Amino acid sequence: MNMFRLHKNFLTTTIPITNWKLCTLRLMNNCYFPWILLIPRQANLRQIHQLSESNQIQLTKEVNQASKIITKLFKPDNLNVGKVGNIIPQLHIHVIARFKGDVAWPHPVWGKQTKPYSKKAVTALIKKIKQTTV
Amino acid sequence: MNMFRLHKNFLTTTIPITNWKLCTLRLMNNCYFPWILLIPRQANLRQIHQLSESNQIQLTKEVNQASKIITKLFKPDNLNVGKVGNIIPQLHIHVIARFKGDVAWPHPVWGKQTKPYSKKAVTALIKKIKQTTV
Repeated sequence: MNMFRLHKNFLTTTIPITNWKLCTLRLMNNCYFPWILLIPRQANLRQIHQLSESNQIQLTKEVNQASKIITKLFKPDNLNVGKVGNIIPQLHIHVIARFKGDVAWPHPVWGKQTKPYSKKAVTALIKKIKQTTV
Repeated sequence: MNMFRLHKNFLTTTIPITNWKLCTLRLMNNCYFPWILLIPRQANLRQIHQLSESNQIQLTKEVNQASKIITKLFKPDNLNVGKVGNIIPQLHIHVIARFKGDVAWPHPVWGKQTKPYSKKAVTALIKKIKQTTV
């Protein structure tokens, strides 16, 4: 049996938040956008439709939960929710708070500007995300 | 009660395929990428989490179905599945077949090159999508 292992690129670009039933949650280390990644903890996944039907429903629930948390915390103008994976093949879903006037608006954020959080800011943000109830 | 009406931009950039239980399906009129839009037929929707839980599950099923059809027909290297909506606010989900070496690879397709299908090509493609069983 193949074990789930996080793709090595996520170790350098993202920061762990917590584990939910299906996914591990990580914060994209880019202070320009509140941006959560949900990564199902199953080996060899690339597409959403490779998950079982019940796990697809679980993924939908967890994406929904992350969307509500980010909406409550940041009151964004819009949410971008997507599965791209052209560069990092391991299945991961982006949930991104977008604001009119953010550095990429109205374009998608992928491939746009990036700037890491300060250590203090990221610690506070992860604490807030974990404490937010929706 | 507000009735569902398709955002006017979709009338010029996309072509109707069919209606499923929740969504109307439309083909993006861009021959560079096999690209289906799923638009839930409910008024005033902007975010996925505004759908009821059962409609979120239905949306997941329909996105899954569209993903499988596009995979069977085109055997892409990857699927991009996303909700962006920064420019057209009406909730719509993109399901896009991506190929290593397509005109935008490995970047997202939004804002990239576009070229309409010929009338003959689009008629044939829509027929194929409607006939594909998964």
